[in-house]
Amino acid sequence: MSVTAPAGFRAAGVAAGLKSSGDPDVALVVNDGPDDAAAAVFTTNRFPAAPVQWSRQVLQTGRLKAVVLNSGGANACTGPEGFGDTHATAEHVAAELGIGAIDVAVASTGLIGVRLPMDRLLPGVTAAVGELSADGGTAAARAIMTTDTVPKTSVQAGNGWTVGGMAKGAGMLAPSLATMLVVLTTDAVVDPAVLQRALASATSVSVERVDSDGCLSTNDTVIAMANGASGVTPSEAELTAALTAAATDLAMQLLADAEGSTKDIAITVRNAATVRDALTAGRACARNNLLKTALFGNDPNWGRVLAAIGTTDAAFEADQVDVTINGVTVCRGGAIGDPREGVDLTGREITIDVDLKAGTEQATIWTNDLSIAYVHENSAYST
Amino acid sequence: MSVTAPAGFRAAGVAAGLKSSGDPDVALVVNDGPDDAAAAVFTTNRFPAAPVQWSRQVLQTGRLKAVVLNSGGANACTGPEGFGDTHATAEHVAAELGIGAIDVAVASTGLIGVRLPMDRLLPGVTAAVGELSADGGTAAARAIMTTDTVPKTSVQAGNGWTVGGMAKGAGMLAPSLATMLVVLTTDAVVDPAVLQRALASATSVSVERVDSDGCLSTNDTVIAMANGASGVTPSEAELTAALTAAATDLAMQLLADAEGSTKDIAITVRNAATVRDALTAGRACARNNLLKTALFGNDPNWGRVLAAIGTTDAAFEADQVDVTINGVTVCRGGAIGDPREGVDLTGREITIDVDLKAGTEQATIWTNDLSIAYVHENSAYST
Repeated sequence: MSVTAPAGFRAAGVAAGLKSSGDPDVALVVNDGPDDAAAAVFTTNRFPAAPVQWSRQVLQTGRLKAVVLNSGGANACTGPEGFGDTHATAEHVAAELGIGAIDVAVASTGLIGVRLPMDRLLPGVTAAVGELSADGGTAAARAIMTTDTVPKTSVQAGNGWTVGGMAKGAGMLAPSLATMLVVLTTDAVVDPAVLQRALASATSVSVERVDSDGCLSTNDTVIAMANGASGVTPSEAELTAALTAAATDLAMQLLADAEGSTKDIAITVRNAATVRDALTAGRACARNNLLKTALFGNDPNWGRVLAAIGTTDAAFEADQVDVTINGVTVCRGGAIGDPREGVDLTGREITIDVDLKAGTEQATIWTNDLSIAYVHENSAYST
Repeated sequence: MSVTAPAGFRAAGVAAGLKSSGDPDVALVVNDGPDDAAAAVFTTNRFPAAPVQWSRQVLQTGRLKAVVLNSGGANACTGPEGFGDTHATAEHVAAELGIGAIDVAVASTGLIGVRLPMDRLLPGVTAAVGELSADGGTAAARAIMTTDTVPKTSVQAGNGWTVGGMAKGAGMLAPSLATMLVVLTTDAVVDPAVLQRALASATSVSVERVDSDGCLSTNDTVIAMANGASGVTPSEAELTAALTAAATDLAMQLLADAEGSTKDIAITVRNAATVRDALTAGRACARNNLLKTALFGNDPNWGRVLAAIGTTDAAFEADQVDVTINGVTVCRGGAIGDPREGVDLTGREITIDVDLKAGTEQATIWTNDLSIAYVHENSAYST
């Protein structure tokens, strides 16, 4: 059911010919009201794609009636012409729906540095408007896929209200098109400021803690829309919990479908002085190619965990750190612990627990291994 | 000639049985004086290996009469026992040579988290002492190899004095044993403080700008020794130039022999506000897996260059940045430049020039591509 699970949303996904495969590549999500509260989180990359520049601008109103998304082209690093293409797309959606362009967010994913074929995209938008339906959520989720093997959707039930969502991408999923796009919808009654706080809280502990290959996209976009169609006003805590559940569900689906990956790795840093320290140490592991290749090779190489966190400024004493891999404490006090031979890494799930013994905070970063298939996917992609 | 090119140094390399292959694995470099000035630069990793902890301590005197090095084991993350092993090694060298342990630096490379087999290492040291000779530099360079395919040596002629050097490792060369070990020797007359300044300057623009895979070893060690045997006192500028030439020569040899790599990539960031900005932007590219896999695939994917520098805090305006790959300016003003089809990436050498248009400083970072062979090497290494 995806983004159309809550009442008052319609969606569609069509093939506009942006992808040479002929697969669906244009998605449209429309909010039929009565409210049009909206919030968003965008990439922090300093080369934000044209659709990110556009959507950041229109979201300043805290209002949104539609989101149009395309795969098959990121429209990033395309200059003023590219921004014009995004603007024209929003205007086209607005004209078709009888709303203002300022009510329309745009999201794109695909190769950086290539203009979109507008002669295909705009007719695609028209076709999507014609196909809008209250059960179009799955079709929309399918149309934003790049090299994802399955559409990612989530539904979370509130007390008389619902949160729906769809996502594509993330790290290894596909290079340049590594972009993560997420749309969340709810029929709860929510003030835009509350929605923004709840969304920021939800993404900070879910999609923002997936670090598949350390490469930050120019196009990452997470948009939430609330239309109040249920008539129910949840507490901010209830809303935050539901958005967090949906975003975490989608994040785990992204991780599991990361192309080229053979392992889902959860790195938990415990007893850190601060959450920031835990995240810094966790990300250093998630971005360490030597550790990621070792895990691809089923090698519980804890030395590479220490070497990775040894590059950070997290608070710890080198002779205090413990590392536990899949339940075996292979490193104690920064030195040799239990025999590494006891660690079974043959499954897809790997847990790495790092105990810094420097405080009481903790955080988990999710990542994948670095596999031969990852290199193959990412070297063969645009050529 | 390696480290024995300057007068007054002897060296040896022997097989002690640390490597299962039976290849040479213990090297010894001895300074016969008359002076014993020394300087060093070590890894900044917060889990420094036992030999790094030891050598950092003895180098505080600015004096050194011998360096003993082993491959086949890093002696890192081995706790107080591992430090005891390093201490015992230095004592053994000292006893054999009739000097103090405080005159002996130790360097190791190999797997992290495994104790060294002292029953093989110490007899190996004795054997190395027996083989010391004024033309033993090449044998020593061979004994510190891990998966290097060729020994790396350099000789730079001064005016009546000489600099010699040997090196092993770097990034992709080999995981865990990714360590870079460098020993530089000179028969110039040099004060220890001058030697330290000259060495720090030389390494900062050479080996410290090689970023093969972004992974910082626990064992990196660069040691310089000056014995004054030539009787000539060069100016600090002359000495710095010669050390820089030797360290750069060795750095380029490391880059060219990086196992699994198919490309040598020089990333020059020009017109930066500061050298730090140039280095930050260059390193972000060197550590971006999507860019590195694209280059492995002969794909001039400039969007990944922008996406990488877009994650940094270097001063630039997004619509000002140009990117030139192998002479073709594929990106102008942060947008589409000349046709990417014009870029020939079939050779091993790749130059990427990023023009930030934010100042007058520049710096070059050297790296390699991310290849299928890299993943294979690094996943299969310790298992």
